[in-house]
Amino acid sequence: MKKVVVLGCGMVGSVIAADLSKNYEVLVADKNKKNLQKLSAKYSVKTFVADLSSKATITEITKNCDLVIGAVPGFMGFETVKTVIENHKNIVDISFFPEDAFQLDDLAKRNNVVAVVDAGVAPGMSNFILGYHYQQMQVEKFECFVGGLPFVRTLPLEYKAPFSPVDVLEEYTRPARLIENGKITVKPALSEPEFIEVENIGTLEAFNTDGLRSLLRTVKIPEMKEKTLRYPGHIEKIKLLRDLGFFKIDKLEINGKKIRPIDLTSRLLISQWKLQETEPEFTVMIIKISGMENGKPRKYVYHLFDRYDTKTGFSSMARTTGFACTSIAELVLNGDFTRKGISPPEFIGKRENCFFKVLDYQKQRNIIYQRNSE
Amino acid sequence: MKKVVVLGCGMVGSVIAADLSKNYEVLVADKNKKNLQKLSAKYSVKTFVADLSSKATITEITKNCDLVIGAVPGFMGFETVKTVIENHKNIVDISFFPEDAFQLDDLAKRNNVVAVVDAGVAPGMSNFILGYHYQQMQVEKFECFVGGLPFVRTLPLEYKAPFSPVDVLEEYTRPARLIENGKITVKPALSEPEFIEVENIGTLEAFNTDGLRSLLRTVKIPEMKEKTLRYPGHIEKIKLLRDLGFFKIDKLEINGKKIRPIDLTSRLLISQWKLQETEPEFTVMIIKISGMENGKPRKYVYHLFDRYDTKTGFSSMARTTGFACTSIAELVLNGDFTRKGISPPEFIGKRENCFFKVLDYQKQRNIIYQRNSE
Repeated sequence: MKKVVVLGCGMVGSVIAADLSKNYEVLVADKNKKNLQKLSAKYSVKTFVADLSSKATITEITKNCDLVIGAVPGFMGFETVKTVIENHKNIVDISFFPEDAFQLDDLAKRNNVVAVVDAGVAPGMSNFILGYHYQQMQVEKFECFVGGLPFVRTLPLEYKAPFSPVDVLEEYTRPARLIENGKITVKPALSEPEFIEVENIGTLEAFNTDGLRSLLRTVKIPEMKEKTLRYPGHIEKIKLLRDLGFFKIDKLEINGKKIRPIDLTSRLLISQWKLQETEPEFTVMIIKISGMENGKPRKYVYHLFDRYDTKTGFSSMARTTGFACTSIAELVLNGDFTRKGISPPEFIGKRENCFFKVLDYQKQRNIIYQRNSE
Repeated sequence: MKKVVVLGCGMVGSVIAADLSKNYEVLVADKNKKNLQKLSAKYSVKTFVADLSSKATITEITKNCDLVIGAVPGFMGFETVKTVIENHKNIVDISFFPEDAFQLDDLAKRNNVVAVVDAGVAPGMSNFILGYHYQQMQVEKFECFVGGLPFVRTLPLEYKAPFSPVDVLEEYTRPARLIENGKITVKPALSEPEFIEVENIGTLEAFNTDGLRSLLRTVKIPEMKEKTLRYPGHIEKIKLLRDLGFFKIDKLEINGKKIRPIDLTSRLLISQWKLQETEPEFTVMIIKISGMENGKPRKYVYHLFDRYDTKTGFSSMARTTGFACTSIAELVLNGDFTRKGISPPEFIGKRENCFFKVLDYQKQRNIIYQRNSE
């Protein structure tokens, strides 16, 4: 039986380890003992309490495995992937680290390593689906609308997330890079709000976020944008906080104490913002790809709508991200995807056999990317 | 020539000293040398750089005067008034201190001192006008709508004030006491918003504030409320900040540093919030008094609309407050108002000769309380 090591046993790492434990020997490592115990009580996984910021520890844990899954927090992601590649191990990563993964491309190629990064939903499945159609047609426009939201809408913000507010606030401040007329255009965070109707839910509001990442360099499409979805009114309130300076990252001196406004804001928001373990939430993603196919104008629209799974207790966000990762891990373990070097998901999606296998794998887990075409 | 000592040479203290210098020998004291120099360059006043938190200093400065004006910051107000009364000097105060002034009533009576407190606009002229009608009729309802706003409306908050945000934020958090069915009712700050149409300006939004102060004990009227005016939308934004915890006064520990959220908020707001010296602003107050007069239902409505004075450079807020104070000071200096003890302005307004003298005095300075009756 093949061996997989999952680095990180947070919300998503747990789902990945649980899923892979059906067909593989799985070892999960994390510094949080409680998370590990909770997982191993229900699933057949080996656990290891470890500080994953240590290179030596990672090397030791992953020594005898066939694949590594990177599910550490974003700020540790790049170093983790680098260490795994240095050790000649294949890796599928969902840490969404801020650094440019292609810095590791030469190393991965030299070491004969398959290294898939951004293997989540968006980035992740959005890239993957675009990759497929990019191979099949002349794509002229790509739009991705994506969001994870609680079903229960509580004012003032009508938002909850299973991770620290500071990560989301970062997304609310970083300028968004999109492609207009074939050129990278930078727009302010939270800009160009528009309403989107979503089945079962109603009206949501979309705004520019900096989510294209690798697509900015791996494809040539004249119009591309990613927008994040929230309940209407949320953006206006977040903009107010931003405009008043509550997201500033420069320290201010208040009564002799130096403090970053964003840290206080994050601290104040966390009580209202923290998604509790069993709170029902959903993930929605709408991808629109249009262009010329076989000489005719063609438009494909994908809809993903997924909700919290009461049976397993896995949140929708963890399910959609985790199963995106395991479906790709499966390709690497089975030898369906063997490309050496750094591969964002668009490199996998463009291979027709990989494309349908990944969608099937997720469909079996009730993650359904419904496709319509015009 | 009679001598007046003005304690405090801030925005309002300056206007008071300038006005009184026409008819009296005026000495102004403040720790801020620049403010004093600016004033004495234009007006015939003596100045004295002094730390007014020292009892001995106040005693020394006020030794030979006929009247003291208290125009120190609110937190120093009570102690200042107490010291002046201890020294057997009459005082008219506009520091709006939070303590109960009537604690000093016995002392003032014993020392034969006339001590007028809250001698501003609201509290101040609102009490004064109510005092007059309370003497003339059976008042059943008293409503006061009041606000000071910039003419230039800049998003997001469309508000500016010539003093520190923390003072205004306090007004936005303190529960509002009003009288309903003859009983004190406590309502949340910012509650019961309603739109009010104001001539020359348009629609403003009014919300409950805790402004009745002395009226809660000095008059018996079944319905009384004070509401503060802002541009529409302001309250909603302030509520958001309040509901998210940005006005909290309990310290939070952020990365090892203990800080009060309200202090950071005040610091962030000050840059947008600070009214610059020559920025045009206005003061609006609408007072509605209804009840039975001579056996018939009667309603009086007063309108005050005052704007920044380009000639003197005095802001409307300083003019309306300062001239309310000097008009009352005039009564005390001329012997028109001689009541010993603590007097809020309703005690003065109820004397008919005082009432019209005060309105005339302010009219000469173009502060016009326009009265309509039904």
